[in-house]
Amino acid sequence: MVDRDRLVSLRRAFHRQPEPAWREYWTTARIVEELETIGVDELYVGPDALNTDERMAVPPAAELESWYERALDAGADEDVLEQLRGGHTGAVAVVEQGAGPTVGLRVDIDGLPREESTDEAHEPAAAGFRSGTGAMHACGHDGHATIGLGVLEAVTESDFAGTLKVFFQPAEEVVGGGKAMAKSGHLDDVDYLFALHLGLDHPTGEVVCGIDEFLAVKHIDVRFTGEPAHAGAKPEEGENAVQAVASAIQNLYAIPRHSDGATRVNVGRLEAGNATNIVAEAAAMECEVRGVTTKLKDYMDERAHRVIENAAAMHGCESETSVAGEAPSARSDDELVDLVGRTAGGNADVERVVDRDALGGSEDATFLMQAVQQRGGLAAYVCVGTDHPGGHHTATFDVDEDSLPIGVDVLAGTIEAVADERP
Amino acid sequence: MVDRDRLVSLRRAFHRQPEPAWREYWTTARIVEELETIGVDELYVGPDALNTDERMAVPPAAELESWYERALDAGADEDVLEQLRGGHTGAVAVVEQGAGPTVGLRVDIDGLPREESTDEAHEPAAAGFRSGTGAMHACGHDGHATIGLGVLEAVTESDFAGTLKVFFQPAEEVVGGGKAMAKSGHLDDVDYLFALHLGLDHPTGEVVCGIDEFLAVKHIDVRFTGEPAHAGAKPEEGENAVQAVASAIQNLYAIPRHSDGATRVNVGRLEAGNATNIVAEAAAMECEVRGVTTKLKDYMDERAHRVIENAAAMHGCESETSVAGEAPSARSDDELVDLVGRTAGGNADVERVVDRDALGGSEDATFLMQAVQQRGGLAAYVCVGTDHPGGHHTATFDVDEDSLPIGVDVLAGTIEAVADERP
Amino acid sequence: MVDRDRLVSLRRAFHRQPEPAWREYWTTARIVEELETIGVDELYVGPDALNTDERMAVPPAAELESWYERALDAGADEDVLEQLRGGHTGAVAVVEQGAGPTVGLRVDIDGLPREESTDEAHEPAAAGFRSGTGAMHACGHDGHATIGLGVLEAVTESDFAGTLKVFFQPAEEVVGGGKAMAKSGHLDDVDYLFALHLGLDHPTGEVVCGIDEFLAVKHIDVRFTGEPAHAGAKPEEGENAVQAVASAIQNLYAIPRHSDGATRVNVGRLEAGNATNIVAEAAAMECEVRGVTTKLKDYMDERAHRVIENAAAMHGCESETSVAGEAPSARSDDELVDLVGRTAGGNADVERVVDRDALGGSEDATFLMQAVQQRGGLAAYVCVGTDHPGGHHTATFDVDEDSLPIGVDVLAGTIEAVADERP
Amino acid sequence: MVDRDRLVSLRRAFHRQPEPAWREYWTTARIVEELETIGVDELYVGPDALNTDERMAVPPAAELESWYERALDAGADEDVLEQLRGGHTGAVAVVEQGAGPTVGLRVDIDGLPREESTDEAHEPAAAGFRSGTGAMHACGHDGHATIGLGVLEAVTESDFAGTLKVFFQPAEEVVGGGKAMAKSGHLDDVDYLFALHLGLDHPTGEVVCGIDEFLAVKHIDVRFTGEPAHAGAKPEEGENAVQAVASAIQNLYAIPRHSDGATRVNVGRLEAGNATNIVAEAAAMECEVRGVTTKLKDYMDERAHRVIENAAAMHGCESETSVAGEAPSARSDDELVDLVGRTAGGNADVERVVDRDALGGSEDATFLMQAVQQRGGLAAYVCVGTDHPGGHHTATFDVDEDSLPIGVDVLAGTIEAVADERP
Repeated sequence: MVDRDRLVSLRRAFHRQPEPAWREYWTTARIVEELETIGVDELYVGPDALNTDERMAVPPAAELESWYERALDAGADEDVLEQLRGGHTGAVAVVEQGAGPTVGLRVDIDGLPREESTDEAHEPAAAGFRSGTGAMHACGHDGHATIGLGVLEAVTESDFAGTLKVFFQPAEEVVGGGKAMAKSGHLDDVDYLFALHLGLDHPTGEVVCGIDEFLAVKHIDVRFTGEPAHAGAKPEEGENAVQAVASAIQNLYAIPRHSDGATRVNVGRLEAGNATNIVAEAAAMECEVRGVTTKLKDYMDERAHRVIENAAAMHGCESETSVAGEAPSARSDDELVDLVGRTAGGNADVERVVDRDALGGSEDATFLMQAVQQRGGLAAYVCVGTDHPGGHHTATFDVDEDSLPIGVDVLAGTIEAVADERP
Repeated sequence: MVDRDRLVSLRRAFHRQPEPAWREYWTTARIVEELETIGVDELYVGPDALNTDERMAVPPAAELESWYERALDAGADEDVLEQLRGGHTGAVAVVEQGAGPTVGLRVDIDGLPREESTDEAHEPAAAGFRSGTGAMHACGHDGHATIGLGVLEAVTESDFAGTLKVFFQPAEEVVGGGKAMAKSGHLDDVDYLFALHLGLDHPTGEVVCGIDEFLAVKHIDVRFTGEPAHAGAKPEEGENAVQAVASAIQNLYAIPRHSDGATRVNVGRLEAGNATNIVAEAAAMECEVRGVTTKLKDYMDERAHRVIENAAAMHGCESETSVAGEAPSARSDDELVDLVGRTAGGNADVERVVDRDALGGSEDATFLMQAVQQRGGLAAYVCVGTDHPGGHHTATFDVDEDSLPIGVDVLAGTIEAVADERP
Repeated sequence: MVDRDRLVSLRRAFHRQPEPAWREYWTTARIVEELETIGVDELYVGPDALNTDERMAVPPAAELESWYERALDAGADEDVLEQLRGGHTGAVAVVEQGAGPTVGLRVDIDGLPREESTDEAHEPAAAGFRSGTGAMHACGHDGHATIGLGVLEAVTESDFAGTLKVFFQPAEEVVGGGKAMAKSGHLDDVDYLFALHLGLDHPTGEVVCGIDEFLAVKHIDVRFTGEPAHAGAKPEEGENAVQAVASAIQNLYAIPRHSDGATRVNVGRLEAGNATNIVAEAAAMECEVRGVTTKLKDYMDERAHRVIENAAAMHGCESETSVAGEAPSARSDDELVDLVGRTAGGNADVERVVDRDALGGSEDATFLMQAVQQRGGLAAYVCVGTDHPGGHHTATFDVDEDSLPIGVDVLAGTIEAVADERP
Repeated sequence: MVDRDRLVSLRRAFHRQPEPAWREYWTTARIVEELETIGVDELYVGPDALNTDERMAVPPAAELESWYERALDAGADEDVLEQLRGGHTGAVAVVEQGAGPTVGLRVDIDGLPREESTDEAHEPAAAGFRSGTGAMHACGHDGHATIGLGVLEAVTESDFAGTLKVFFQPAEEVVGGGKAMAKSGHLDDVDYLFALHLGLDHPTGEVVCGIDEFLAVKHIDVRFTGEPAHAGAKPEEGENAVQAVASAIQNLYAIPRHSDGATRVNVGRLEAGNATNIVAEAAAMECEVRGVTTKLKDYMDERAHRVIENAAAMHGCESETSVAGEAPSARSDDELVDLVGRTAGGNADVERVVDRDALGGSEDATFLMQAVQQRGGLAAYVCVGTDHPGGHHTATFDVDEDSLPIGVDVLAGTIEAVADERP
């Protein structure tokens, strides 16, 4: 039986202490504490839970350290923290319950670097569990971590025969953690994988059995390096990084549309030069490309690199690019979509079961889904509806806590059914 | 008689305490202290020395305050400082010595925001008067301020008949202070004006009687404001400030060359956007235009505004521009050039007198020259040679202190001669 | 009963005499001749068949006249020709057969401005009915005109109760004729409309009951006008149309992608300037925008105009745009798709019935479909498969003449059924 | 003694039959006819007068042939014409008159591809010697050819001791003929070279002894080749030559200004693409770069190539460039300027002698001047003033025929003086 109060209390604890990507020190320690209370067979944290070389978009050391200190001050367990130091957050919990398939559940745990509303109409503000860190759980990952723990507990108490692995993944918001977890080795024996999201404009009582049309994405950091010169006295001696970046931008947005489907490109951050009267020797640009399939993302990526290299060369500059985040596209498998549908359909609190819906955004759970599917396994990305007053990523986002037990029931039920039916 | 030791000691004091544009608190206070020692008939400081509304490129209040505190800590006179608060630096000193013309001398007093060399081959480092503020007198304005005081003292001790005004101008390096001083009212009765620069690649013992070919310049700060949007989910809802700024840059550099003479354009600073996956709603750009005549600068300015406005409109953005610094072009008058030449020619320490040379850069002394010339007066910009190991604005720039008494003698002598001859 | 030989002979006659958009003089006269032979109740040609003010992409008078002369030389009826003079091609034929609905059939009749293959493997070349005009029926409109006549004859011989209108539309290849026919008034009482295409990569024996995903399109001719200047002597006096057009191009391709679906943009033709050493005073550009819905096309159109106007203004030029062709998007109605499917399913020569397919290109039959649908009528765009050795618009395109009687049977059958069932 | 009437009659004959660059068939034949009448020691025409491999901007064969036919029709000598066929126009005439230096005189002979005014106020129209070819002598080369013949005749009748070579150069207007003549071998023994221009805004009676500040120039033809694609159906398959050319243009104009002096860049002609709905596979661009020194022109040339290559590569295109015309900068030598001044000063019809003036444009006489100067010889470019109602290159340009005998006298006199003084 799912204990709603406990789920709510847990979710509020997470909500009060949101930590952005790779800074989920307190959050991971709290998850570990809960897992130890519940009891698991194996527990991997920090470098043991991830392929640390595959982490993307890791912030500078000083930034990591300041959140580490904050986690310490907030009372996180020092021994656990020590293992996570340097941005090795996240955990993998394993429960072995006899012969049967290995089933995975992936939940993400990071918050967003934005302020939370102080409006009294905003429940967390009114009820006193508003963020205390300056960051915010504005995308429901507090609920995801909670449901991950709830499902694990529920499965341990059930007749489930097989192995359950719950992946508490860091750094989803920067599409920086999925690949590192997918390449941790822990996915290698997973036969069935579920990933989970609350909300996505679906109300409480609605369940979407399979989310599709993830936009594959790649975040690219670019640095142009040229030669400085005095803009009045010797303009001809400069190799102008500002001109290089401007040429790149104009031509990046102009990459041809593709007849196979949707593509995207954006230059979201820009910084260049030191002084008005100096030809800029350096410019930095943060951009992204997307495609509704991984292949379309690769098309955009290849064209983007062609533009960047030639924009640099055109102005006598060097360009350097690095991947700051990435996720492929994915599709939920029919067999699991069907099973989720049947389980959800049998749940008294579920009023409407939707077969499939399109995400139209990006998500790095797709790295884990791809890993399982490429080995012949099955995967599905399930949406558990929740009434949310503000939109995702806004200051007034909140989840309806009634959706927490629904999420635990539907997913735990589906996991048990998977082990029975082995579709 | 000019006292070399006193000039050197004064120059080193200034060198030790360089302050960038509009932050010359300690420097102004020290100048005031000297002026009071010498004795002047009128002394204007802070808002009384400038038309404060015409100041350009004034830094934010917090930045000003931190230098104010530093000046206090360094022992500057509190009463004087209080008058300067909020970036009202600089001073005008007046000496009245009987009937005769009004002669002006303009010297600039600000340092540059750069580190000074610690190399033992760098005399200030070796002799212990290296900068203690993090900024640096890397363009000789410590010497200019010193010569300004030296000339004032020398003139008071001479037979000069007339009125002498010495303008200690702040914020030359950002071409931000010249206009404010030119419009202070203190120029309105000046019949003859001299401005002064040390070095400019001329060695000690050389004097250039008239510097010309100042590039008229305008620094323009631009802000593009559009509409943010999620780059994956709703790219069409954005009005992209990054695209606007890129279009502007490409077309600014492409403003047609002009057959009347040299023009320049540069975008030296750029900053835009908040996140890789958000269509940028804002972009800021710091650019400049120049021309070898004021008219050519105005041509560039007009075309630049046309580009900026249409680049913004093309991408659904607003653009806002503000002038962050400005200086016209100017030409030294033949009559004064001739007089400087004769005076310098009669000076035993001057080995070579050069008639005229081109600056090929920008300077806002031109605002003061223009003010005098437009009223029918005469003006000249004089270069007093000095051996300088490093180039202007580099970490190893230094002046040969032997040039200080030469500067005082030549200028004081010329000022006396001007009063006699009234050319 | 459909007479295959007669259809083949008619199609070959059309194939031998292809005429590009608005030059279908001989073709229209030949259609009129056939219609008079068959016998129709009403017949409208030239200005009576079209709203001539709504014609787009009409070629210059001299070009029209040279094709007019050619038609005369080829033996077209002079009286008919006289009515068509000046690019008023096309015809509408009406058959009234008692009480019942009004059903329309639209076929297009223009050829393409390209050479036809002389290869012996190319059937028209081998069998002696290769184009004699320099243009080519490389998209099957010879077959369309033939089927239009065949259907009309078949319907007159059937039990069809109602009114049949066959629209022989000119200038589809330049999306220039659809609007003029849609606004002719002849569509105003049409209850059901069918349009037809052969091939589209579907083999003989296949019928697609409803084609969808027409890309709405707009062809825009743009002219930039600036000021000439000698590029060496007075570059600043120019207002450079070449710079304007380059800015426009760079930013047209960079119009943001839209989350509602596919969009397109292309600059396909460019011409500017007179001499290497003259700043260009004029530039002409032919471009197009598309969208998978009419709304998306409008989005692209609006953004394109914003880019064009501001690119011109940025460089001191004027821009003038004119619509050179246009077509909305459309969707085939379920009721008619269903009916086509049933009719085709009952045809012995039809091996495979496909419910729906996407065009992924543009077509101005959509203007006629839209006109009918907006008045509450139903419309469907039917594809009759045909083996075609070369792709559409290539030199070796040809239709399998076995598909002609299939087309006549399926469409005539459907039209009779529509009158019976009135869906 | 110079015969004014003969000069006038000759000039009007040339004026009536203007031929553009490399098409000067009739003109060359007429010059040869005159030279044979006067009598010369050596005469080189066609391939013997030029290094034909170094010709630039030669028009297509068909264009050349149509002017060849026209020359035949106009009665030119067939034997001479035969030698010129294929665009080998121009001539070199040599007169040997005893021991002495070799002196060269270069005159250009081509017309411009523009219509001549029919206004009665335009003397050639009123007096009946307006152009009969559709081209126009709108830059005075009819007068140059005339003066060249007049000087040759005058020198043969004088005491001149030495060798005189007169270079009748084709294709100056496209800066296409100078290099071919400079590399013909005929310059290799020239000790002193004069070149000549009428007008240049100097009135009749004025002589400028040395023209300077020629803008070195290079005309570059560029072809971008990509891949075509259907812009609606498969935009991603294109490699877009229109995008390549737009990127190139934007960045060509944005090549940094140079502190050493004036530079120029222009894209004067543009043509691309075949159809609105096809991604353009080809684009052609005619551009030029200039600099007030040859070095500055080379700077622009190098940067232009960098832009062009990378603009192509950025869009998956190839670029091909070819030199369509070229000329270096040059300076008239003091010794000759002085001599021209003295001779002109002694001429009763010369009212004003100007030492030097700047051209501010381009001229390929500089190739010949450079060839002589690099071997240690001296060269000067002389301007003989003439009242001209319309500006150079306009429809109402005309020369004051009084300037013809002045030109002959001053140049013949200078050539004699050179042989005497050997400066």
